Amino acid sequence: MQLMRLGPPGAERPVVRGDDGVLHDLGGLTADIGGAFLANGGIGVVRAALEAGTLPVLADADPRVGPPVATPGKIVCIGLNYRDHAAETGAAIPAEPVVFMKAPDTIVGANDEVLVPRGSTRTDWEVELGVVIGRTARYLTGEDDPLSYVAGYVLSHDVSEREFQLDRGGTWDKGKSCETFNPLGPWLVPADEVPDPQDLGLRLWVNGVQRQDGSTRDMIFSVAEVVRYVSRFMVLRPGDLINTGTPAGVALGQPEPKPYLRAGDVVELEIDGLGRQRQTLGQG
Amino acid sequence: MQLMRLGPPGAERPVVRGDDGVLHDLGGLTADIGGAFLANGGIGVVRAALEAGTLPVLADADPRVGPPVATPGKIVCIGLNYRDHAAETGAAIPAEPVVFMKAPDTIVGANDEVLVPRGSTRTDWEVELGVVIGRTARYLTGEDDPLSYVAGYVLSHDVSEREFQLDRGGTWDKGKSCETFNPLGPWLVPADEVPDPQDLGLRLWVNGVQRQDGSTRDMIFSVAEVVRYVSRFMVLRPGDLINTGTPAGVALGQPEPKPYLRAGDVVELEIDGLGRQRQTLGQG
Repeated sequence: MQLMRLGPPGAERPVVRGDDGVLHDLGGLTADIGGAFLANGGIGVVRAALEAGTLPVLADADPRVGPPVATPGKIVCIGLNYRDHAAETGAAIPAEPVVFMKAPDTIVGANDEVLVPRGSTRTDWEVELGVVIGRTARYLTGEDDPLSYVAGYVLSHDVSEREFQLDRGGTWDKGKSCETFNPLGPWLVPADEVPDPQDLGLRLWVNGVQRQDGSTRDMIFSVAEVVRYVSRFMVLRPGDLINTGTPAGVALGQPEPKPYLRAGDVVELEIDGLGRQRQTLGQG
Repeated sequence: MQLMRLGPPGAERPVVRGDDGVLHDLGGLTADIGGAFLANGGIGVVRAALEAGTLPVLADADPRVGPPVATPGKIVCIGLNYRDHAAETGAAIPAEPVVFMKAPDTIVGANDEVLVPRGSTRTDWEVELGVVIGRTARYLTGEDDPLSYVAGYVLSHDVSEREFQLDRGGTWDKGKSCETFNPLGPWLVPADEVPDPQDLGLRLWVNGVQRQDGSTRDMIFSVAEVVRYVSRFMVLRPGDLINTGTPAGVALGQPEPKPYLRAGDVVELEIDGLGRQRQTLGQG
């Protein structure tokens, strides 16, 4: 099953999509799909109801696919987590995970417009496996199972502005938090329905040309290692999102003239089992 | 007047403190003091009610002072924004504002316990002027008045772990987002009751020894410049917090052995007109 939120921005309704593709309304079970829902066993409740056949079929689904989880408390991002991407950017392979943050209000729906920021000449794409936290993780040790803290997985687009990120002083955050810079979804797949998060293909196209074609097999730090590591530096709470890094193929890694995004470009991306996104670029 | 939130963590009640020091319950006017309250003219409504004498006096105030605003959507921080602090850390004077982020769930009350993270040997203090946004700011230009987007000012403690921040790879965020690392308050002062945000003294003591004694006059980038600058890279929304940097005197800037914080230490800090904080350090 896949969890979704359909409707206009800020007024999405919770929905479950069965493996038969039929959409069911979750409004009778929960007001929203967010941290409280995930922490309180919401996924199990939805699964039981879906299997029992007690959920109403969604008659008139809103065509807009919202982000599949409510705005998280924080978005933690892992940089340079694929060897080929570190190499293409000229960076060394990190000795421990590179952590940065993205403003939570950058999240938009899977097919919403993405805005090239004003003054930007180097807006770039990054297909990433998103990890949604299901219960509070704090100082996990080698004896903890980090994946048991994961509620589910989601397709995440870590849109980036390279000049703001790299050439304007300070940390990377300046080029990561622009408006609309984190399309998320179309759906959240429960963790126990993803057989191996380290064996998922990730692909991205710009204007029909494939630019990224990677696998989570090639992560430097696995999802489990990332969750354990981050929990040593900050509390991970239900609903929080971790973007786990991108494989090679971003514009920054291309020969000159680098094909940075401009208004009118179309980006499509997908991860095995996690669905597909399609964004048309606009001007901020 | 000063806006406050009193009560146990997560269940604070909104309160206004008149200039006579009397506390009044705001429960009849608003459920909370957060982005929606600020965006919808809440400060003006409270002021009118206070002046009209229609607010009930708070009979039995909860002794715990919570953060004066609800958890923000994001915390944006400005680094190295005082010349003397940049110098003491060995950093160059930045050519444009250094921006990093802090996880919003680091916010605690003014007098709550602050936890030294596990494995930390270099936990440090930073007294800062906090700016709370009152209305959405997006791509402000030279024709906009950035201060008109500010709802109010607040005392903010940007607790930092220097090894995590500087020596563990990646951006600064790793050493800025540890649990309890942003005591905020005790109160929010409306912007129009702060005659000049660039003329406020900031002071901090550790175990009774004064360590910081600065003035917002010495900021490299003023509050107005910071708000305008940040709005070019991300949308600032009502309730968002900007920590505007710290003056000299942090542990990092002291001679060896640097007096980093340990469990049992007591930190006190204040800003003219914005109240005083007192935290006892605990062990995370």
